[in-house]
Amino acid sequence: MSVYLHDIPLPEAWKRLREAIQAAGRWQVLGTEEIPLDERAVGRVLAQPVWAKISSPHYHAAAMDGFAVRAADTDGALPTAPLTLTYGEQAVYVDTGDPLPLWANAVIPIEKVEPLDENGSAAADPRAPHAIRIRAASTPWSHVRPMGEDMVATQLVLPAGHVLRPVDLGAIAGCGHATVRAARKPRVAILPTGTELKPIGRPVESGDIIEYNSIVLAAQVNEWGGEAVRYPITEDNFERIRARVAEAAQTADLILLNAGSSAGSEDFSAAVVESLGELLVHGIAVRPGHPVIFGMVTAGGQPSAVSGQPPDAVPIIGVPGYPVSAALTGEIFVEPLIARWLGRPPAQPPEIEAQLTRKITSPSGDDDYLRVAVAKVGERVLAAPLSRGSGVITSLVQADGIVIVPRGAQGLPAGERVRVRLYRSPAEIEHTILAIGSHDITLDVIAQFLAARGRRLASANVGSLGGLVALRRGEAHLAGSHLLDPETGEYNLSYIRRYLPDTPVRVVALVGRQQGLLVARGNPKGIHTLEDLTRPEIRFVNRQRGAGTRVLLDYHLGKMGLAPEAVNGYPQEEFTHLAVAAAIASGRADCGMGIAAAAHALKLDFIPLFQERYDLVVPKVYAESDLLTPLWNLLEDPEFRSIVAALPGYDVHVMGKQIADLE
Amino acid sequence: MSVYLHDIPLPEAWKRLREAIQAAGRWQVLGTEEIPLDERAVGRVLAQPVWAKISSPHYHAAAMDGFAVRAADTDGALPTAPLTLTYGEQAVYVDTGDPLPLWANAVIPIEKVEPLDENGSAAADPRAPHAIRIRAASTPWSHVRPMGEDMVATQLVLPAGHVLRPVDLGAIAGCGHATVRAARKPRVAILPTGTELKPIGRPVESGDIIEYNSIVLAAQVNEWGGEAVRYPITEDNFERIRARVAEAAQTADLILLNAGSSAGSEDFSAAVVESLGELLVHGIAVRPGHPVIFGMVTAGGQPSAVSGQPPDAVPIIGVPGYPVSAALTGEIFVEPLIARWLGRPPAQPPEIEAQLTRKITSPSGDDDYLRVAVAKVGERVLAAPLSRGSGVITSLVQADGIVIVPRGAQGLPAGERVRVRLYRSPAEIEHTILAIGSHDITLDVIAQFLAARGRRLASANVGSLGGLVALRRGEAHLAGSHLLDPETGEYNLSYIRRYLPDTPVRVVALVGRQQGLLVARGNPKGIHTLEDLTRPEIRFVNRQRGAGTRVLLDYHLGKMGLAPEAVNGYPQEEFTHLAVAAAIASGRADCGMGIAAAAHALKLDFIPLFQERYDLVVPKVYAESDLLTPLWNLLEDPEFRSIVAALPGYDVHVMGKQIADLE
Repeated sequence: MSVYLHDIPLPEAWKRLREAIQAAGRWQVLGTEEIPLDERAVGRVLAQPVWAKISSPHYHAAAMDGFAVRAADTDGALPTAPLTLTYGEQAVYVDTGDPLPLWANAVIPIEKVEPLDENGSAAADPRAPHAIRIRAASTPWSHVRPMGEDMVATQLVLPAGHVLRPVDLGAIAGCGHATVRAARKPRVAILPTGTELKPIGRPVESGDIIEYNSIVLAAQVNEWGGEAVRYPITEDNFERIRARVAEAAQTADLILLNAGSSAGSEDFSAAVVESLGELLVHGIAVRPGHPVIFGMVTAGGQPSAVSGQPPDAVPIIGVPGYPVSAALTGEIFVEPLIARWLGRPPAQPPEIEAQLTRKITSPSGDDDYLRVAVAKVGERVLAAPLSRGSGVITSLVQADGIVIVPRGAQGLPAGERVRVRLYRSPAEIEHTILAIGSHDITLDVIAQFLAARGRRLASANVGSLGGLVALRRGEAHLAGSHLLDPETGEYNLSYIRRYLPDTPVRVVALVGRQQGLLVARGNPKGIHTLEDLTRPEIRFVNRQRGAGTRVLLDYHLGKMGLAPEAVNGYPQEEFTHLAVAAAIASGRADCGMGIAAAAHALKLDFIPLFQERYDLVVPKVYAESDLLTPLWNLLEDPEFRSIVAALPGYDVHVMGKQIADLE
Repeated sequence: MSVYLHDIPLPEAWKRLREAIQAAGRWQVLGTEEIPLDERAVGRVLAQPVWAKISSPHYHAAAMDGFAVRAADTDGALPTAPLTLTYGEQAVYVDTGDPLPLWANAVIPIEKVEPLDENGSAAADPRAPHAIRIRAASTPWSHVRPMGEDMVATQLVLPAGHVLRPVDLGAIAGCGHATVRAARKPRVAILPTGTELKPIGRPVESGDIIEYNSIVLAAQVNEWGGEAVRYPITEDNFERIRARVAEAAQTADLILLNAGSSAGSEDFSAAVVESLGELLVHGIAVRPGHPVIFGMVTAGGQPSAVSGQPPDAVPIIGVPGYPVSAALTGEIFVEPLIARWLGRPPAQPPEIEAQLTRKITSPSGDDDYLRVAVAKVGERVLAAPLSRGSGVITSLVQADGIVIVPRGAQGLPAGERVRVRLYRSPAEIEHTILAIGSHDITLDVIAQFLAARGRRLASANVGSLGGLVALRRGEAHLAGSHLLDPETGEYNLSYIRRYLPDTPVRVVALVGRQQGLLVARGNPKGIHTLEDLTRPEIRFVNRQRGAGTRVLLDYHLGKMGLAPEAVNGYPQEEFTHLAVAAAIASGRADCGMGIAAAAHALKLDFIPLFQERYDLVVPKVYAESDLLTPLWNLLEDPEFRSIVAALPGYDVHVMGKQIADLE
């Protein structure tokens, strides 16, 4: 049975790990400890059930300020036929919470009583009268908290495996405990390895990777109830990694070795695991993340028989290096292990049924963990697939949930109903505005402000035309668009008439923004106008056909009578503003067209040429909904407008102007 | 405007508090601090948006181990028409993550390449060949992670007000930050007051109350992102409480004064607040919890004008003493304040629509916070109201959620559709088995064991007959029942035929249990048989009509020819086993009938007389469902059986036996 980079299905991988941990005698709660019952106990897991030591209340207690009486003594009292009870024998004053005398079984609230002195007049001290006069009978146990009303001695208050919440602490204290027996926190050692890794806060050069997986994994481990220990970065060196693992195996319950779990030239994880114990699994059919390693190691490094494990053998997981793979490896493998070791059930995220907005292809051999944005558009809950890249951690940050495309499926068609494991509460989903279309930095600022106004803005960048198509399909609340009609010089309207003929929409101007030329810092080639693009020594880099910026360039070249063929590099296409900027920053090109913010991002110079309008296109049914009200209010907010106005190349004079109401 | 114990509506109370805090200049994030970006940052709230400082990747990076090339150089390569690229000029080896040379724009994975030596043979070191042969063209940017694929410098990564999760830390680190600016944690001082309070862990006597509200409140505050400071218990003394409040006002952002917020003889809170500042609200129309106080105080104790607040004025909340009121006061008032001060949105618990199982009456002037158990029985989601008592903290522990019965409603009818704010995830609700009927301690043990098997057992004690009625209404998955038919001596079946004529049910024996006589410790009156109950000096205490235990007593009295009138105290009724035990423990009675566990709970002696059978009555549709499979497996589990067998008076020989299958 080869274990070398041979992807095996998830259940089989789990089975091997579980059996090895069982063989080492560690497939249960790792240990217990008595902890004080105070606010720090929240989140700890009960290792034993809590049975009530005493009842609560532990005596019959007055539930009101008033007089304790025998209910039988009050029989017959009526408004018209009052009864008088002797103080001391038939009635005694009690404050709320006071114990009842043994003979009493009811309390009459003080405001229902006439306290009398020796002469039958109102008593001077109503709490110490000679007698009391009452005008209603009491039922037994009225205004009394009987012994055990809340908890009865010996009853089960909370089961083992329960994760303590604030109110639980009260109940446990109330039934007579001052401590609880909790599961010991599993110790998880996190070992980042890689010569290219740099700790956060250090300057980085090309080829350096900022090491943050260990922080994400440690934060996950702690959140799930474990105790993470982060080790310093170990360079790619077999002996040093081996020594680190051996060191960690002395104290850890689980070792996470990140990364080196693939089969590249500097991937030592598998060899290290073999040299210190047994390699169980090398590759799991899960995407993203499949080069996962499972093994068992000991500090002494005795390789174990396949049939058994030495008692000091510790499980080790080789976690892939890409951040999405690393974080999902935590969710898929580490969380259930910690749950097992704490004796609590594994996490059960809320789920929601949603419809996929687009077709997904998946490798049929793998369980595919698809990150999706989720929003309710009209009556439909939609799941829009996010970036599939395992290096794109923002796809997890922005994800509202995960869709698992199971092994065997080659993918899923658009419109498919899927279960989404949610990262956010369904309430947040209900308050999500989904914007699909051309991206503009103003949308980021809007997201920032809306968060404080009870709305979440989720946006997907598919270009202006893609946004109109999404609106037509009913898959977005609004689309950002900056489509120039080359024939009329007008923005968006002709495209909306063509792509959304049957949908009443409102078009609201968001910003005017500068489009211009991006050039190297200091503008060494002296580029100032579109005419300069035709200079033979100038290398231009273009945007793809259909991009709003390309349309704008072509429009102005045409107006100026300049032939595209005269522009050196015109056929070289990039797909985003930033890719254009990056081509210039890297020296591959001298000049490209885009927005000022892209130049700013890569510290390029910017030569403003044209102002274009960027609109929000909103179906009227959403434009007039509660969901979007905070957005419209925001466009009037002076603080918001001044922040956008301060962005390089932005103009807010048009902001909020209703351009058209198309039926 | 009187503020003395005059309940005002919640929105008006909030308005007064908000305006006072605004007047003191504290109605916003209280402060910010730069914190290191490590796992301890989880749960902190961003005080500023995070904008990317650098792009991620911050260079064009190889996404595979292989050769960096210019895509244009590969044009035309085919399986049948390979191309050869010169190493160094046209192709360079790169590991995953390495930067691409400036001239390259694609990577060919190493397994797709034939590395050659000078002679055109396979190169000895495939990573350092003389040339490479390829048999397919590359598209630009294939197997490359382009600069900014994940994040683009200057883009918004996370908005202010965002609560940090593990993956967020990765994204923030990845775009060049080593710290984040977080909202300072609001400091909340918690002051328990009351002469009757005893700290946990001390022996208690009648009238003592175990002080745990401060722990619950502190745990809530910490969980919501505040920083709780618990003060020691202060006795009921105006000057001492005043001194404590003044001390806390020096450092706290919020003071929670627990309790003394009512108007009893020792309720000093209102007077203390007045003496140190301004009393804004005394009584809010919210149940449970209405004697809530709002005020503003200063350490120096300058009373402020109504129109303004000194800048050092600190809000103070007088929290009621009953534990349910205290915990709900936290949820209703403290959580939104902390949210405001952290700049995050207030908590949005998941909600579910459910049907009330029974009618609820509410005082029409109050917002009524009703605790409910929630389960899905068949296709219906049901909300079963729990104890309304504000002293019953287990009603919060057991609650699956809260239904808010708004002011103006006098209550809600059975069957009403209500929104439940859930304390548990909807997934947990789906895995909840709802048992309504007679309670037995075995159900507690079942709950304990099922928790480890992916099921939650929620049970409500309404007596055997009540359970059958609940089944008839489709409001429970099963009912515990021990109803003896006095004519046949048979258990449950005749009652089921009568009450559930149309519902196919399975009857499964759970336990045999001893019923007998509860007597004072040492059995001072020498009671041994039912005949002894007729001795004139014996004071008996009975169960209510319809209780299974009462039916059993009557059956045996009849069989023995003993007249109920001959039993001294026969008409005196209690409603639970424990109430009977408590009557004996307190000396009010000498003897009662019940189960051994009730005697055990209050350290009484127990004289076993009869064994009765306690069955589970389960509609067949549930008996055969996945939901209940773990229950049936449990009844076979030797560990479970031995634990039940060890309970005093319990017999498990019948456990799991199918008594009847009634169509």
